[in-house]
Amino acid sequence: MTNYPRFGFVTPQNMGLLTDLYELVMADSYLRHGMNEPATFDLFIRGLPSNRAFLVSGGLEQVLYYLEHLRFDDAQLDYLASLGLFSDGFLNYLRGFRFTGDVWAIPEGELFFPLEPLLEITAPRIEAQLIETFLLNTLNFQVMIASKAARVVLAAAGRGVVDFSPRRDHAADAAMKVARASYIAGCTGTSNVLAGMHYGIPVYGTMAHSYVMSFADELSAFRAFARDFPHNAVLLIDTYDTLQGTRNAMAVAQEMASRGHRLRGVRIDSYESIDELAALSRRVRAICDEAGQTEVQVFLSGDLDEYRIEELLERRAAVGAFGVGTRMGTSEDVPNLGGVYKLVEDSSGPKIKLSTGKATLPGRKQVWRVRGNGGAMHDTIALREEPPPPDATALLAQAMAGGRTITQDSLEAMRGRCHDRLAGLRPALRDLHTTPQPPVGLSDRLQDLRDQMYRTNAGQDAEKRERAKKKTRRRL
Amino acid sequence: MTNYPRFGFVTPQNMGLLTDLYELVMADSYLRHGMNEPATFDLFIRGLPSNRAFLVSGGLEQVLYYLEHLRFDDAQLDYLASLGLFSDGFLNYLRGFRFTGDVWAIPEGELFFPLEPLLEITAPRIEAQLIETFLLNTLNFQVMIASKAARVVLAAAGRGVVDFSPRRDHAADAAMKVARASYIAGCTGTSNVLAGMHYGIPVYGTMAHSYVMSFADELSAFRAFARDFPHNAVLLIDTYDTLQGTRNAMAVAQEMASRGHRLRGVRIDSYESIDELAALSRRVRAICDEAGQTEVQVFLSGDLDEYRIEELLERRAAVGAFGVGTRMGTSEDVPNLGGVYKLVEDSSGPKIKLSTGKATLPGRKQVWRVRGNGGAMHDTIALREEPPPPDATALLAQAMAGGRTITQDSLEAMRGRCHDRLAGLRPALRDLHTTPQPPVGLSDRLQDLRDQMYRTNAGQDAEKRERAKKKTRRRL
Repeated sequence: MTNYPRFGFVTPQNMGLLTDLYELVMADSYLRHGMNEPATFDLFIRGLPSNRAFLVSGGLEQVLYYLEHLRFDDAQLDYLASLGLFSDGFLNYLRGFRFTGDVWAIPEGELFFPLEPLLEITAPRIEAQLIETFLLNTLNFQVMIASKAARVVLAAAGRGVVDFSPRRDHAADAAMKVARASYIAGCTGTSNVLAGMHYGIPVYGTMAHSYVMSFADELSAFRAFARDFPHNAVLLIDTYDTLQGTRNAMAVAQEMASRGHRLRGVRIDSYESIDELAALSRRVRAICDEAGQTEVQVFLSGDLDEYRIEELLERRAAVGAFGVGTRMGTSEDVPNLGGVYKLVEDSSGPKIKLSTGKATLPGRKQVWRVRGNGGAMHDTIALREEPPPPDATALLAQAMAGGRTITQDSLEAMRGRCHDRLAGLRPALRDLHTTPQPPVGLSDRLQDLRDQMYRTNAGQDAEKRERAKKKTRRRL
Repeated sequence: MTNYPRFGFVTPQNMGLLTDLYELVMADSYLRHGMNEPATFDLFIRGLPSNRAFLVSGGLEQVLYYLEHLRFDDAQLDYLASLGLFSDGFLNYLRGFRFTGDVWAIPEGELFFPLEPLLEITAPRIEAQLIETFLLNTLNFQVMIASKAARVVLAAAGRGVVDFSPRRDHAADAAMKVARASYIAGCTGTSNVLAGMHYGIPVYGTMAHSYVMSFADELSAFRAFARDFPHNAVLLIDTYDTLQGTRNAMAVAQEMASRGHRLRGVRIDSYESIDELAALSRRVRAICDEAGQTEVQVFLSGDLDEYRIEELLERRAAVGAFGVGTRMGTSEDVPNLGGVYKLVEDSSGPKIKLSTGKATLPGRKQVWRVRGNGGAMHDTIALREEPPPPDATALLAQAMAGGRTITQDSLEAMRGRCHDRLAGLRPALRDLHTTPQPPVGLSDRLQDLRDQMYRTNAGQDAEKRERAKKKTRRRL
């Protein structure tokens, strides 16, 4: 049925079926019952995970690509027909499917908080329903990674951070999106060559221990590498003895200088403890400086994350840049994010989902951010039509109209945005070890609308309200 | 440079660049120095993660596909040339690249243990080096998921388990591979329609709370759904009041029966506690049975994993099948696996990597498994040429010769293999809460070879040995 049945690649041709079956089942039923009025859905995160003070928007570009190119071809329709579930009418509907809706979104690289709509979709109900799974798959992941990587970047305090995660990421697409989301969050680049090619992200890479050991001795390996890559040599100095490795690297650095080249750096990739690594890095730095190689960077890698980087710097490690892999690429301490996608308005007006126990905010919205002194920020979630509060900036911008993308930032613009936001962050939101109360409130009108809808629902069904309140307590 | 620059799809055309830059850098250097003799690399897991008693092989089919189809086209070569790093000779080498090596592997669905070679590659050194990142990305992930899913399947004790994870998996490819790896491990199917189409996995899906709330009342929603999908109706009964929802479902079941149809099941997706859910499931079961609907299955879902399923069954939940999403699809308690890829033999003979501090076993190998009474098993890692121990079965089989796949199991065969192994597992390896010592030893000859190589190395470099021993203690 496809060209790559054994591998299972996701492509623009088949991505329409990367969805939970129930989206298609419900859509078929809606079509049979003529329930295809326009509806608005919010995609948002319910609450901050542990040790997260903020979230970083990521993945919108992929969402817009998906919405513009979403189609169902014969191979897919044949497969769906073979399931014996769907009506002919629905299969015909899918044959001509185009996403025709509007999208408002918080731009990539922006910081945001729980309950704020990261994405707002307005489209005929069936279109809006069918896209739920793919949107959540895309945004939950990139937001999780961008938010994790921003912490690593904050911990590195201005030093470079390179994504080294491809071998441990969750399959092929994750390796691409980790490189992308971590670059938006401020990483310097990635080891992933395909991500470099696709997204224009700088790529970095040096040598493995196995390279050093493939030569007769360390000095021969360093010399060969310096001759082969005179402009990009970072030498791995901890294969045998790190201090002797540093001295060998310095010998090669002098040889390079005599040829008009410059050794870029030395890398340490293994350690007994953070304490030992911090001390070792200072001795390596001193050897480099004594050799007159003050420009040579000390590069540290090996199971690092924001916690270990913070500890290294507290212990005065002498380090120019970090390679960060597994723990960032799998967001090890928070390996999933519970973003949801909920109806907030349809042709009958604003909607609120009491009874599922999952708090939602009714109506189409805008998020207004007011910045105070010292990097303070406060967000107000308001109804779209409300006038802006004084000195407030809108977070949501329209990204798609009638199924066509109307604005698309460059990756550098997203990265610049995130850099600005992180630079201005107040200390409480920089702390890596707490989960502060998000600085978010509701506008009076949104609050009133929600309360009124709660009361109305409660009047209709007291049990429903009670149940919703209980579940809200559990889930939020 | 590509057709889908904005999305970043990984395809058969571009997968060759899904690699860490240093693989290409080292390969270029090896080519310049004529270091392209045949070499053998082992891919293995260093140790069991916490709460894992065994690992399940998964992902070999994708590895074989990758090795057979790996090419570098003009777009990729142009990008590599643009980096200003590589020699013309190396870019020419890549232009004609084909993987020509041999692969031995532990078949998918088989249980295995740390230090056992999951995969053994013998190829010209540059070929073997270039593939490292992609192989690790593929196998680390699918092994992690298959191993996690096997635990969920064991906990479910014969009841069905359906993968519900796509919205929380780590991007698009992960959703495909979670469906595949969890099916091999014994899951009944997936909600992921594209995985159903690609791999022939059964797909499942019913309705969301939003569907129920889109109708005037619950009974109307159930009636519409039962008419639309008379052969596949599983009704979500917890949108308002679960017991009344069950009674509504029973009313619809009677109506379906009068039309010659049968309600397949009812689903509960939200709960306050495992205790409450277990009790609720029994009340739902009783209502179904009293209505004469003894065949209707009770289906439970919502943030489940092996620990919660075990608890539900200990509390005598009445349940026919489980939907399991986020926690399985992201292997929440062990979200990454540290598989590595190490040289074990080259043209000069067996190799051992003392000095990187990462224990390796020299030479080409076979793993022999002896099964005892009561599901006991014991593995012996031996040199390839050693005669088999009595009554032992070989775990490694040749999967590729000279770059061509020579054997490929069907997904059903992999699943059957895993089912057999799990069925015969002794109690100590079924326990979900411990990390037992793996039942693995070395053959005398392998042990002797390793000891001898340690001594030789130690004679050459006592410091190296000490360093290796220290690191081995830390890492293993």
